[in-house]
Amino acid sequence: MIPVDWKSLFEPALASTGVPGSGHVTALRNTRKVRIEWGDCDPAGIVFYPRYFEIFDASTSALFERVLGLTKFQALKTFNFAGYPLARTRARFVRPTRFGDDVTVETTVEFGRSSFAIEHRLSLNGVTCVECSETRVWVVHDPADPGRIKSHPIPDAVRAKFHA
Amino acid sequence: MIPVDWKSLFEPALASTGVPGSGHVTALRNTRKVRIEWGDCDPAGIVFYPRYFEIFDASTSALFERVLGLTKFQALKTFNFAGYPLARTRARFVRPTRFGDDVTVETTVEFGRSSFAIEHRLSLNGVTCVECSETRVWVVHDPADPGRIKSHPIPDAVRAKFHA
Amino acid sequence: MIPVDWKSLFEPALASTGVPGSGHVTALRNTRKVRIEWGDCDPAGIVFYPRYFEIFDASTSALFERVLGLTKFQALKTFNFAGYPLARTRARFVRPTRFGDDVTVETTVEFGRSSFAIEHRLSLNGVTCVECSETRVWVVHDPADPGRIKSHPIPDAVRAKFHA
Amino acid sequence: MIPVDWKSLFEPALASTGVPGSGHVTALRNTRKVRIEWGDCDPAGIVFYPRYFEIFDASTSALFERVLGLTKFQALKTFNFAGYPLARTRARFVRPTRFGDDVTVETTVEFGRSSFAIEHRLSLNGVTCVECSETRVWVVHDPADPGRIKSHPIPDAVRAKFHA
Repeated sequence: MIPVDWKSLFEPALASTGVPGSGHVTALRNTRKVRIEWGDCDPAGIVFYPRYFEIFDASTSALFERVLGLTKFQALKTFNFAGYPLARTRARFVRPTRFGDDVTVETTVEFGRSSFAIEHRLSLNGVTCVECSETRVWVVHDPADPGRIKSHPIPDAVRAKFHA
Repeated sequence: MIPVDWKSLFEPALASTGVPGSGHVTALRNTRKVRIEWGDCDPAGIVFYPRYFEIFDASTSALFERVLGLTKFQALKTFNFAGYPLARTRARFVRPTRFGDDVTVETTVEFGRSSFAIEHRLSLNGVTCVECSETRVWVVHDPADPGRIKSHPIPDAVRAKFHA
Repeated sequence: MIPVDWKSLFEPALASTGVPGSGHVTALRNTRKVRIEWGDCDPAGIVFYPRYFEIFDASTSALFERVLGLTKFQALKTFNFAGYPLARTRARFVRPTRFGDDVTVETTVEFGRSSFAIEHRLSLNGVTCVECSETRVWVVHDPADPGRIKSHPIPDAVRAKFHA
Repeated sequence: MIPVDWKSLFEPALASTGVPGSGHVTALRNTRKVRIEWGDCDPAGIVFYPRYFEIFDASTSALFERVLGLTKFQALKTFNFAGYPLARTRARFVRPTRFGDDVTVETTVEFGRSSFAIEHRLSLNGVTCVECSETRVWVVHDPADPGRIKSHPIPDAVRAKFHA
């Protein structure tokens, strides 16, 4: 457990030059299949939308795992970082999905300096059901106070893997 | 369970005149306290963000329950509608919260014709932690095919309660 | 959504002769891999145990899907039943798992007359982490009142598939 | 995040003399109200049962918080312990509940030496819906290796609060 003081953590990272949108789009795209389960659905018989965000969070992890060749657990140790908490997200729900559906999630990333933008497209049989954008911040433990975390430039070693 | 065909359900409702933003802001504001639980938090010790959307969905229900004087279960029967699925949402995460925090969620609504906009502000000790906007569509069972649902103008009886 | 009156639903089904344990063990065993995600874990860095029950519920569905050749959504229509709600469960947590672990879940079933018993074994690299037993009841819509459900003998067509 | 090695963590704690059941029942009973939300329910319109375990986990925390006068976050620091992970649980589902229900959860505890037993009764309007038993183990960080945790006798200071 990380005691956290995020006061003014996100805003500087997002305000810095080199934020997502500046064109550092990587060519990498991760695609995974996800089964929509009975327990993901609500009394209307369709996905309870917070479950989509669970799917998207795991899809972001899957993209990093595929490119870095490390699970998030391993990456936290290897790169001595503390995660990539979400600063912003927005989603558009176009068509509902329901239990038994095997949906496809395609995920891409665009790097800023200390933050990055993720795009997810969730589709069923090629038809878009949900679109989601995320802005996440790369954070490390504060050397001056290991109980705190602070934003940090995304390591070149990470960046390089995505542009390889 | 509602077999659903939402093809072109949302877009017409959102494209119609009278969409949220046109100024039909109600003066009502619902406020509720929510305890952040151990199980809402991730290995970083802070809220796993999909849990915020669970909190916000319940906060939207709480606003309607307070104004209509009916639980969602009762309202589904009384107004013969089929729910208010989410068409869009966006959120900004400003400060993290963690288990043991008793946060406050303030919720307001602005009605369009067949859709409505919700704003949530989640705060801790008066300091904003998360802001979230939702666009939801009022849907009913299609009389021509009860197995389908379609968007429908928000009933005047509902609207009136919010402007009382 | 099924308005439910389960008064005395479960007890008669469980008390009837032919309850699980009487020896109708099927030889079928379904095995699936599940990735433990960051969002499944708590501030101790290990699985928050209610997530295991989500995994087990999906594993029960997966067993039926494999044997019947139908998703749960399709099975609900084909067999005109209303689900197999849980009457009892118990679990033993032997070793924790954490994000990045790819666990294996093995699931078996033993049929009674209107109920059945499920056993799940969740393991990591061959080592048992969690064991779980479930007793579930087969329910149908009450013909006398479609708004109610009642227990019902498991159809021979379902039983036969498991013993094929 | 606590790197965990729980090999042979639970069994010794449970096998030790003074396990729950030996009669150290405390007179304390915590009662709390919980609203069942739309998102807690499945396509059958009733609670998806893993949500009950979320409710019970929070109810265990609530009992300790009430007696110790500390949130779990504060207690982790005060008593230098690492939590009370679940070793075993079992539940009996007697009557379903659904969204809009305000259920009552009553929780009691019985202490062993390094483990304790919890009983939850979830009811609606006085009628029992779910009964659940838990066995949990008190764990601390291993002084010889802070990255590990091990079972530990429940501190007398904690025990005393429950018998006060």
